[in-house]
Amino acid sequence: MYSFKNDYSEGAHPRILETLLRTNLEQSEGYGKDTYCEQAEKLIKDKLNNQEVDVHFISGGTQTNLIAISSFLRPYEAVISANTGHIYVNEAGSIEATGHKVIPIDVEDGKLRKEDILLVLTKYSNEHVVKPKLVYISNSTEIGTIYTKSELENLSQVCKENNLILFMDGARLGSAITCRENDLTLEDISKLTDIFYIGGTKNGTLLGEALVICNKNLQDDFRYNLKQKGAMLAKGRLLGIQFIELFKDDLFFEIGKHENDMADILREGINNLGYDFFVNSPSNQIFPILNNSVLNELEKYYGFSIWEKIDENRSAIRLVTSFATKKEVCEEFIKVLARIKSNI
Amino acid sequence: MYSFKNDYSEGAHPRILETLLRTNLEQSEGYGKDTYCEQAEKLIKDKLNNQEVDVHFISGGTQTNLIAISSFLRPYEAVISANTGHIYVNEAGSIEATGHKVIPIDVEDGKLRKEDILLVLTKYSNEHVVKPKLVYISNSTEIGTIYTKSELENLSQVCKENNLILFMDGARLGSAITCRENDLTLEDISKLTDIFYIGGTKNGTLLGEALVICNKNLQDDFRYNLKQKGAMLAKGRLLGIQFIELFKDDLFFEIGKHENDMADILREGINNLGYDFFVNSPSNQIFPILNNSVLNELEKYYGFSIWEKIDENRSAIRLVTSFATKKEVCEEFIKVLARIKSNI
Amino acid sequence: MYSFKNDYSEGAHPRILETLLRTNLEQSEGYGKDTYCEQAEKLIKDKLNNQEVDVHFISGGTQTNLIAISSFLRPYEAVISANTGHIYVNEAGSIEATGHKVIPIDVEDGKLRKEDILLVLTKYSNEHVVKPKLVYISNSTEIGTIYTKSELENLSQVCKENNLILFMDGARLGSAITCRENDLTLEDISKLTDIFYIGGTKNGTLLGEALVICNKNLQDDFRYNLKQKGAMLAKGRLLGIQFIELFKDDLFFEIGKHENDMADILREGINNLGYDFFVNSPSNQIFPILNNSVLNELEKYYGFSIWEKIDENRSAIRLVTSFATKKEVCEEFIKVLARIKSNI
Amino acid sequence: MYSFKNDYSEGAHPRILETLLRTNLEQSEGYGKDTYCEQAEKLIKDKLNNQEVDVHFISGGTQTNLIAISSFLRPYEAVISANTGHIYVNEAGSIEATGHKVIPIDVEDGKLRKEDILLVLTKYSNEHVVKPKLVYISNSTEIGTIYTKSELENLSQVCKENNLILFMDGARLGSAITCRENDLTLEDISKLTDIFYIGGTKNGTLLGEALVICNKNLQDDFRYNLKQKGAMLAKGRLLGIQFIELFKDDLFFEIGKHENDMADILREGINNLGYDFFVNSPSNQIFPILNNSVLNELEKYYGFSIWEKIDENRSAIRLVTSFATKKEVCEEFIKVLARIKSNI
Repeated sequence: MYSFKNDYSEGAHPRILETLLRTNLEQSEGYGKDTYCEQAEKLIKDKLNNQEVDVHFISGGTQTNLIAISSFLRPYEAVISANTGHIYVNEAGSIEATGHKVIPIDVEDGKLRKEDILLVLTKYSNEHVVKPKLVYISNSTEIGTIYTKSELENLSQVCKENNLILFMDGARLGSAITCRENDLTLEDISKLTDIFYIGGTKNGTLLGEALVICNKNLQDDFRYNLKQKGAMLAKGRLLGIQFIELFKDDLFFEIGKHENDMADILREGINNLGYDFFVNSPSNQIFPILNNSVLNELEKYYGFSIWEKIDENRSAIRLVTSFATKKEVCEEFIKVLARIKSNI
Repeated sequence: MYSFKNDYSEGAHPRILETLLRTNLEQSEGYGKDTYCEQAEKLIKDKLNNQEVDVHFISGGTQTNLIAISSFLRPYEAVISANTGHIYVNEAGSIEATGHKVIPIDVEDGKLRKEDILLVLTKYSNEHVVKPKLVYISNSTEIGTIYTKSELENLSQVCKENNLILFMDGARLGSAITCRENDLTLEDISKLTDIFYIGGTKNGTLLGEALVICNKNLQDDFRYNLKQKGAMLAKGRLLGIQFIELFKDDLFFEIGKHENDMADILREGINNLGYDFFVNSPSNQIFPILNNSVLNELEKYYGFSIWEKIDENRSAIRLVTSFATKKEVCEEFIKVLARIKSNI
Repeated sequence: MYSFKNDYSEGAHPRILETLLRTNLEQSEGYGKDTYCEQAEKLIKDKLNNQEVDVHFISGGTQTNLIAISSFLRPYEAVISANTGHIYVNEAGSIEATGHKVIPIDVEDGKLRKEDILLVLTKYSNEHVVKPKLVYISNSTEIGTIYTKSELENLSQVCKENNLILFMDGARLGSAITCRENDLTLEDISKLTDIFYIGGTKNGTLLGEALVICNKNLQDDFRYNLKQKGAMLAKGRLLGIQFIELFKDDLFFEIGKHENDMADILREGINNLGYDFFVNSPSNQIFPILNNSVLNELEKYYGFSIWEKIDENRSAIRLVTSFATKKEVCEEFIKVLARIKSNI
Repeated sequence: MYSFKNDYSEGAHPRILETLLRTNLEQSEGYGKDTYCEQAEKLIKDKLNNQEVDVHFISGGTQTNLIAISSFLRPYEAVISANTGHIYVNEAGSIEATGHKVIPIDVEDGKLRKEDILLVLTKYSNEHVVKPKLVYISNSTEIGTIYTKSELENLSQVCKENNLILFMDGARLGSAITCRENDLTLEDISKLTDIFYIGGTKNGTLLGEALVICNKNLQDDFRYNLKQKGAMLAKGRLLGIQFIELFKDDLFFEIGKHENDMADILREGINNLGYDFFVNSPSNQIFPILNNSVLNELEKYYGFSIWEKIDENRSAIRLVTSFATKKEVCEEFIKVLARIKSNI
C-alpha cells in the first residue's frame, strides 16, 4: 500500500547514496572536522550569500531544536511558541527537559505574529514568572502554512526591539521556500533570524539538518553543546557529504519544488472533486476534509494520517509528499478518490 | 597520509552501503517502528540467545550513554566509573548535564573491580552525598583492555547484591569479544549486565549503536527517552538496515576479528622492534611507547594520536585499526618504523 | 497604610516566637534530625490519624513543590495542572527547570476535575509527547476556592485507576479546611492524596511547610532530594519547633479559622454594599469587583492587589487576611469602602 | 552531653531573636522586597565599602552555592573545586543536578592555588571535555584553613586572565576573617572575587546567607534564579532582620572572634597535652589526633565528629565552636581530656 503519511518514508535521494558510496573508503577526520563538512558549510554560506554565519550539521530536528534552544538560554529564560509548534506538542518535552518552559500561544494558522509576542512580554514581566527570551517559529509550519517576507520582517523587528532570539525550525524549509506563494530567500532568512535550520531529513537526505547561527553573539563554543548532547557523530562526514550534494548545485531546491509539485497535483485534484481543506497550506503537507465513508474506503488503498475530527461525518486527513513521490502515483490517487466518491 | 588515528576514519562496510541502496525507495514506517528495525532486533535477540531483552538503535555512543544512564536514575543517584571512563573524560559533561554526578575511581588498566565498588558504597552512605546506583564499564576499555568472564561475573554479583545497575559501554565490543584473550560471549553479557550496547560506528556502520536492555525492570517506556533526547531518527530504517547486515550472518564478528588481526600485525611488529607498550591491550587499540625522535619522523608518514608523555624522551602513541584497515598497510607501517629506527 | 495584599505581611504567631526564644540555646542535631522535628512529625501523624506517612519540613512552597514533584518523576513524565496553578503561573518555571513539562488545563474556578484528567490521558498517549504522571492541585486554590470531599474522592479515584500521583499544594490548607463550606479533614486528605503539604508560612509561621508523603512507594530516600535541592536547613529545629506549636494543640486550625472569620467580615460587608465578586471563594482570599473610581480612592487607605480588569470601568481586586488581621481593621475597611462608595 | 559537633547546634544570637520579636507584627512587602532586606543590603555595602555590589539573602549554604553557580554557567561549563570542597563532597550532587560537572583537584590543605587552575585549563581545552568556567573556593575551608590576601590575589589574577569566575563560599567567613592569622577584609574579598557569600547560619543566625555579587556583569536578573530554585522566602524579612543585627554594628565580627577565641582555648589546651593536629587550622574548626582509647572515653562526655582514621591506634576528630560556646565549657573540656589522658 502506498503511503502519503510523511516525507520520511523512503531513504535518500539516489545522488546522495551514490556519493556516499564513491567516497566511502576515503579517510577523514572525525566529529565533523572533516573536509566534507567544511565544504558543505562553505556551499551553504555561498547560497546564503552570507559568510558571517556558522553552520553545524546535526542528525535530526528534535535534537537540533533542543540543542540550539538550550544553548542560548539562562536557566529562567523561556521560549515562546505557537500551540501547534513542534517543540510544544511533538517532542516529548525535550525543551522542558533542558530546563526551559515553553509558553504556548493559541494560533489559527500555525504562525506567530508580532502582537502575540508583545502580549506575552506584557504578561511575563516580573521574577515570579519565567522571562521570555526566544521565539520559536517553523517554516513551513506544522500545518503546512508559510511565512511571508513581510511577516518575518515584523517578527524580526519585534525580537530585535525586545532583545529576543528569533529561531526558525526549518525541518520543511525546502518545501516552504520553493512553493508558489513564497517570497522569502535563504539569504533573507539568514538576515532576519538569529538562528535557523535547513532540514535535510524531510528534503531528501538519510538524516541531517544544517543549523545556521546567524547572530554572531551566539556562535562561540557551540560545538561543546553538540558534544554534550550526543549530537557530534564520530563519522560526521555522513552529514557533510549529504549537504554537499544538496547544495553543490540546486538539488535542495529541486527536491522542495518536486514535493510541492506533487502536492499541487493532489491539492488541485481533491479540490476539483469538491472537497474543502482544513487549512490553506501551500507546501508539501495538505489537509483535505473527507467524509468518513470516503475515508474508510480510501484507507484500503493508501496510508495517511487522520489529522482532526471535524464533525460527526467528516475528518481532516494529512497527505505529505516527498522527494520520492511520483507524479503517476499522485494522479492515480485522484482517480481512486474520484471513484470512491462516485461509488458512495 | 594514512591515518591510524581511529576506527571511524572511513565510511561503512561496503555490504552495508549496498543494502542501503537496494532498499532505498521502499517505504517504511518512521521513528524506528519500521520492519528493518524489527528484523534487526530479532536477529540480535537470536544472537544473544535471549528473547527477553529490548533492543533500541541510537546514533552514537555519547547519546546512547546519556540516554540510558539518565533514564534509570532518580535525581540524587550517581554513576560509578573508572577515571578513564569515556563518560568521565570524553563526553563534555554529558552525564552531569542530565543531572547526575559521575564518581571517578582511579584505576591502572581501565577496568573496575568488585573492591572499587564496595569502597565507594562504604564512602557514599548518607544523604549528604549522592547515592551510587549505576556502574559504568567499557569493553573494550578506553585503553584497549578487556573484561574476562570471571571479572564480569564478579562485578555482576556485587551489583546485584547492592541493587546497582551494571551498564556496559560496548562502543568497541566487536573488537573486545573477538580478540584472542576474550572468553565472553554476547549471551554472557546479556545475562551479566542490566544494559549494554553493541557498537556499530566503530565496527563498520556509518553510525549506530544497538542498546540492549536486559533487565526487564528497566524496559518500560524507554522510547520516550529516545524521543525526548532527540535520538529517535525519522528514518530509523537507516539504523535497522545496518544492524541487519551486521547480524544476519557473522559480519559483526568478522569485522571485529579483522580489526584485531590488523592490530596484531602492528603489535607484533612493533614488539619485535623492541618497543614497550603503555598498556597490554589485546584489542584494536594499541599503545606503543616510542622515542620522540622516532615519533617525529613517523608522523611524516602516518596519522596517529599522542596518548601520553612517558618521560623526557618517550611518549606513548595510540594506533587504531578499523574494518577498512588493510593488511599491506600494516605491514608497510612496520617496515617504515623499522627503517626510521635504524636511521636514528 | 494597612495592607490586605497577602497573608505573609507579618512575622509569626507570637506563641511561635516565644517557643523559639525559650528553646534557643538548647543544643540539637543538625539537618532536621533533631528532636523537635521528630516531635512535630509525631504530632502531625497523630492529627492525621495516620502513622504510615512520612513528614518533611521545608522552607517554602515553591521549594516544596519543586522538590516533591521532581523527586517522583522519570525524565519524560509530566504534571497536569490547572492553568491557574501556582506551579504553572507563579513559580518562574521551577518545575520545568527540573526537566518536566506542566500541562495546563483551562478551568473556571481553579479546580481540576476527573474529566480534565481523562481528556489529557487521551491526548497524551504516545512517545512523541510527554507522559502525564502527576496531578497537581491546590487547596485552597490560587483563587480561594476549595475542594469538596466528593471532588477529591473523584480525583483520587481517577488517579489510582490511571497510575497517576495526586499531589495537593496546601500553602493555604489551614484556611481551606477550616472554612464553612469545607467537609474535608486532614485525615481524609492523607488517604485521598499521594502527597500533600500543610502550609505554615501563610498560616502563622515565619517560614516552613510540612510535606506529607502518604504513598509508601514514594517515601524511600526522600531526604536525598531535600539535601540536593538545598532544602535541608542546618538548623532544621527552626521548622520543627514552629510545627510543634501549630500542632501540639489546635493552633493550626485556630489560625485558619481566624483568617476565614476576618475574610467573612470583609466579604459580607462588601456584599452588603452591593458589589459582586470575581469568584465565589469561601476562604481567606476574596476578590470583589470594584469600580475604578472606588478603587482609586480605596488605594489611598489600603494596600491590595489588582487581580484582573473586568471591563473599562471595573476591576477585581484581591484581599487576603492573615493570622494577624484584626477584626477592627476589617470593620474599619468596610466603613471606609462605604464612605468612598457614597461619595462617588 | 555537650556537643562540639558543629556550629549550628544552637538557635540564634539572642539579639537576633529579640529583634524578630520586636518587629513581628509590622507589615512588610513579601519576597525580599521589604525595607529590612533593603536596610541589611545597605549595611553590608557600607561594611564592604563598595556600593557597586548586589546582595541577596538566601536560606542556606547548599542553596546559595547551587543557585549562584548554576546561574552564571552555560550548559557545558564546569566548576573547579578542591577535592575537599563542600560542593564536591557534601552537597548530594547539587551542582551536577543543575547540569554542571565539578572538576576535583587533589589538595592537602583544602585550598586551591594558581597552579592548580592553570593545570586544569591545560587539560580541559577542547570540546570533548567540559569547559572550566568557575573556580569554587571556601574560606575558611572545610578543614578550617584560611586564605591569605596574597593567595587570594593570585587566584583572582589567574581567574581574570583566563575569564574564569571566582566564587568564595563563606559559610564560615566570620570565623575566617576574624582569626589571628587572617589578613583579608570583607572589602578585599569584594574586590578580589566575582561572587562570595557571608555565612549567617554558622555565625549566629537562625538561617541565612548573604550572597554578594561583586562582578557587575553577573548581576542582571538574579532574582529570577532565586524564585525558580525556591529560595525566595515569602517572609524575606526573616533574613533581612537577622543581617541587620549582624551588620548594624560589629556583631558579625564579634561572633566570629568569639568562635575563634573558644577554639583557641581548645587548641592550646590540647596542644599542651601533647597531641598533634590533622591540619593547622586557625579558625573555629580544629582537628586533634587522639588515641582511640582516649577517644572512646571522651565520647562519653562530649559530642564530636570522627574526621579520619590516622592509623590503627589514632583518629583525627573535629571540634567546632559556635556563637554560643562558653569559655567554661571549653576549659572543662581540656580538664576532662587531661584526666582521661592521665588515666589511660
